[in-house]
Amino acid sequence: MNTLGHHFRLTTFGESHGTAIGGVIDGCPSQLKLDFGFIEKELQRRKTAQTETASQRKESDRIEWLSGLLDGVTLGTPIAFMIRNDDCKPEDYEALKEVYRPSHADFTYEQKYGIRDWRGGGRASARTTLPIVVAGAIAMQILKEKGIKVFAQVTEMGDVQQAKNESDTVGGIVECRIVGVPAGWGEPMFGKFSAELAHAMFSIPAVKGFEIGDGFALAKMKGSEANDAFINTNGRIITSTNHCGGIQGGITNGNDIVFHVAFKPIPSIARPQQTVNRAGDSCEILIQGRHDVCALPRAVVLVEALAALVTVDLSK
Amino acid sequence: MNTLGHHFRLTTFGESHGTAIGGVIDGCPSQLKLDFGFIEKELQRRKTAQTETASQRKESDRIEWLSGLLDGVTLGTPIAFMIRNDDCKPEDYEALKEVYRPSHADFTYEQKYGIRDWRGGGRASARTTLPIVVAGAIAMQILKEKGIKVFAQVTEMGDVQQAKNESDTVGGIVECRIVGVPAGWGEPMFGKFSAELAHAMFSIPAVKGFEIGDGFALAKMKGSEANDAFINTNGRIITSTNHCGGIQGGITNGNDIVFHVAFKPIPSIARPQQTVNRAGDSCEILIQGRHDVCALPRAVVLVEALAALVTVDLSK
Amino acid sequence: MNTLGHHFRLTTFGESHGTAIGGVIDGCPSQLKLDFGFIEKELQRRKTAQTETASQRKESDRIEWLSGLLDGVTLGTPIAFMIRNDDCKPEDYEALKEVYRPSHADFTYEQKYGIRDWRGGGRASARTTLPIVVAGAIAMQILKEKGIKVFAQVTEMGDVQQAKNESDTVGGIVECRIVGVPAGWGEPMFGKFSAELAHAMFSIPAVKGFEIGDGFALAKMKGSEANDAFINTNGRIITSTNHCGGIQGGITNGNDIVFHVAFKPIPSIARPQQTVNRAGDSCEILIQGRHDVCALPRAVVLVEALAALVTVDLSK
Amino acid sequence: MNTLGHHFRLTTFGESHGTAIGGVIDGCPSQLKLDFGFIEKELQRRKTAQTETASQRKESDRIEWLSGLLDGVTLGTPIAFMIRNDDCKPEDYEALKEVYRPSHADFTYEQKYGIRDWRGGGRASARTTLPIVVAGAIAMQILKEKGIKVFAQVTEMGDVQQAKNESDTVGGIVECRIVGVPAGWGEPMFGKFSAELAHAMFSIPAVKGFEIGDGFALAKMKGSEANDAFINTNGRIITSTNHCGGIQGGITNGNDIVFHVAFKPIPSIARPQQTVNRAGDSCEILIQGRHDVCALPRAVVLVEALAALVTVDLSK
Repeated sequence: MNTLGHHFRLTTFGESHGTAIGGVIDGCPSQLKLDFGFIEKELQRRKTAQTETASQRKESDRIEWLSGLLDGVTLGTPIAFMIRNDDCKPEDYEALKEVYRPSHADFTYEQKYGIRDWRGGGRASARTTLPIVVAGAIAMQILKEKGIKVFAQVTEMGDVQQAKNESDTVGGIVECRIVGVPAGWGEPMFGKFSAELAHAMFSIPAVKGFEIGDGFALAKMKGSEANDAFINTNGRIITSTNHCGGIQGGITNGNDIVFHVAFKPIPSIARPQQTVNRAGDSCEILIQGRHDVCALPRAVVLVEALAALVTVDLSK
Repeated sequence: MNTLGHHFRLTTFGESHGTAIGGVIDGCPSQLKLDFGFIEKELQRRKTAQTETASQRKESDRIEWLSGLLDGVTLGTPIAFMIRNDDCKPEDYEALKEVYRPSHADFTYEQKYGIRDWRGGGRASARTTLPIVVAGAIAMQILKEKGIKVFAQVTEMGDVQQAKNESDTVGGIVECRIVGVPAGWGEPMFGKFSAELAHAMFSIPAVKGFEIGDGFALAKMKGSEANDAFINTNGRIITSTNHCGGIQGGITNGNDIVFHVAFKPIPSIARPQQTVNRAGDSCEILIQGRHDVCALPRAVVLVEALAALVTVDLSK
Repeated sequence: MNTLGHHFRLTTFGESHGTAIGGVIDGCPSQLKLDFGFIEKELQRRKTAQTETASQRKESDRIEWLSGLLDGVTLGTPIAFMIRNDDCKPEDYEALKEVYRPSHADFTYEQKYGIRDWRGGGRASARTTLPIVVAGAIAMQILKEKGIKVFAQVTEMGDVQQAKNESDTVGGIVECRIVGVPAGWGEPMFGKFSAELAHAMFSIPAVKGFEIGDGFALAKMKGSEANDAFINTNGRIITSTNHCGGIQGGITNGNDIVFHVAFKPIPSIARPQQTVNRAGDSCEILIQGRHDVCALPRAVVLVEALAALVTVDLSK
Repeated sequence: MNTLGHHFRLTTFGESHGTAIGGVIDGCPSQLKLDFGFIEKELQRRKTAQTETASQRKESDRIEWLSGLLDGVTLGTPIAFMIRNDDCKPEDYEALKEVYRPSHADFTYEQKYGIRDWRGGGRASARTTLPIVVAGAIAMQILKEKGIKVFAQVTEMGDVQQAKNESDTVGGIVECRIVGVPAGWGEPMFGKFSAELAHAMFSIPAVKGFEIGDGFALAKMKGSEANDAFINTNGRIITSTNHCGGIQGGITNGNDIVFHVAFKPIPSIARPQQTVNRAGDSCEILIQGRHDVCALPRAVVLVEALAALVTVDLSK
């Protein structure tokens, strides 16, 4: 359950304040000269995306490549990599050891496992998505050779400055567009392109909604408004509109794949909150430490990475 | 890719106007006395749900049980079943053989497979979801013994009468609630309860959106509004609100699991539409035959069935 | 666990005396015109292989094709098929309801499931391998187009006539050769061609041994004797000997793939045997009904079918 | 394809002379206090097993634990670990860059991937099985709590001293016994306990044969000799003999699980051998460097580890 994909498969590991986080990519084509500069740039992009909304953790985020490469070229064997957790300050979290932060995974992890890594959210920390960015960058390189690109952007976001002043946090919506996917990718029934995208996006912490094409707005339309007419443009069959977001019957139709992902606000707010401790007693909690006001700028990079992973996995 | 689930696995088969549709359930517990009456009732419910919005196909929908049972009791071996396609009128679809219906899967299937069953939508027909209802009813029986129930209802739907008069169709939204799931179900990272639900719901034809808890509305909230405070009620830790829809960090927290599914309008409208044929020439299409004005009433049964399948699959 | 394969996947179902046995093939290429004559011939071959050693069950073995086909051509969607169990005589087995046949699966199934289909061995019956023959024949057709053939033969077998006179049974060894597989198929580590073959062969009832190339004999050789030297023959690199059976490091080297499968004697002997009943009491059993003296002639067809399934599954 | 298991899943990575080798265990129960001493002992056992037959590579083999643990206790999340390749001497292998060693995976890897890590066998090196020993030791700890033990021993081996004098190598046979597995484990059809064991054992480099119980010898027996009679011993139903090796119909019967694994001799012999180079030209090769005379003593530890992994994976 820590593996994503069927053919291009990413297994991730790591807790926020453990020794390291990382991943193993199984099924990457051989003879690919990895563009390490691009991978680093994606990691950097994730970090600096957060100028205004960022936490203060100094993450050096240096990738150590452990296997699957010979002189930077893929061997076809598993590519393992890791990033050490250098700037750990578990003592920041000592106060949270016995108490459940509201709308975090503290309580549910403990219910599931009977044990919980209380240091910085453990496995549920946003930091654990870093390996996804690394693998996604490799996927993007593969897609680039096929003429496919992935773009995401924030299309809706709460007012960060206002929220900061109030020690509060905000959520928002990310739009993503995959351009250049030919018609005929995706599987009908339980392997639909849209289903795989939804699955991948819901793997991002704080995601609470996903829609493809016009999504929820389609629920209010009539068939005559929602249908995408086929036209022939220079010998290529496309649709004149794209209400469906590039996917029909779970399979791509050659148009841009367009989808939106809704993020809830970050639950760590710098205000006193009501909660209970492990003993079940009511108590108040004031979350200290380094936290973001908004996850959206970082989420953009993550949404792109997962979109790339899904697309490579379903590619022919 | 025609299989759903990891432990309780449903593989479905069949085209709308082929010999039969059906499924194989692998991983069903042994020694369960199947409640055939309940299964039939679910199938019937799907059918009669459509009084106002229904198509006219006379589907006898008699289930033939092929394996996995001894005197109606499960053996632990695969349960195979099928439903013959009795009332086939492929000639109704002869006119559609060479033309792509807008917003249907005709074009994409042909791009993927180089061949397409043009008789009633083939594998992409809504009829192919029937086996899901059968398997879902078995899943519900298993859940019932654990004190878990699944309820869905239409919470938004276009005006059917108005659309009928205009030879048009409407979409809508289904809300589903899973009651009684204990805290601690679901897997972190790529097997989140929410991700599995999203994946399953996007397997339904015409689904274009999915949200858990307050979903897209959370994107507009602040952390202080969106957080669910933990409280202790009679020794049981629950949350006082349920913005998250019962799932935190991908794992259930013991509250009701609540989600919404958005359906686009049925693309088969009884009006002339612009499209292209297989040769790529522009043409007009007027879809004849038996079609629904709205899929929502039927979709309710399907949403419940898939919710039950996912819940059994993730149960401990 | 009733599914074989990763890309070309066969799920089987059915008990010996239930309604039907059958299978679902997911991942079969589209646009393949099935050679039904060949499939029937394989089924017939399995049946008549047994002139001397056969049981008397009159199996009509008519295949009903349920899905995945349009005018006999594959659609790329799941191909479901079934064979009804016509000539059932469960009353033959009534005497076995409360007693465990030695070296059968009666006891172990009951331990696992708490219930057992006592009619003719249920799911553990050799009859349940029939769907493998059907799917294997389709796999062979795909391989044929790639210039690959599969041949198996009995290379060792006990004396059937002598055993028949003594109301006894015999085992034996089947040799199989896959010809025409290019170099480079199979996966290293846990997906080795040899490992997949071994896994598949051990799925046949009564199989107790598997070896590739010279197999167990290699344990007695020295490196200088066992090594296969590479030579260049007309520009093609091959090995001058084939001790390894065509597989090195789990991957094909272009030579014939050669392996042996050892079968134990059929456990149903027409002699009184010591055993216990479900209550745990010692008792004597005399197995009545229709049984083979030797499974080998039939097994040949099954070994070929599974070899074809594995090869298609690992093909590029 | 670098993943073994369904519930307790091990993914391995690494080449012999890359940065590191390692593994990720997904599905390990939480709250298990790892016995690091035992794990180290197993690794040490693998190393020192080779007193007489060993290579000279100084492998420090220090395990770095990367994730999944809190104070040495499992969290239920993926356990990642790695072992750095310290004592690499890739220059030893420079001479092998352009030539295919007979009966090694050099040729087949290059055919498959179009590229090959020529440094010490790369991914095909025996060293890459080290992570299996680590994961197997954890599996043994889990089994121990259930009263299950795994023992393997060499039952047949060529004369090492004689082979050493002749610059040759020898193969042999390992017998393994799993004691304490209750009746009812394993899956019928394609997930048989025997099939899973065979699959796992064929993942070991140099394995060419596998048999369960009396294996190939059963092919020569009659049913009356091969059958295992059931008896009641102090209220427990067991078989008086164990020709079947503890598995009937793919499911355990409560007796010891007994199997044999045949190993071919190590292909690296210190003698000139005929082969071809990458250009296809005939040439002579004399393999230098550090190599074992016999893999058997090490293989014992590996067979035990894999037997433990399979047993945990199929445990209830």
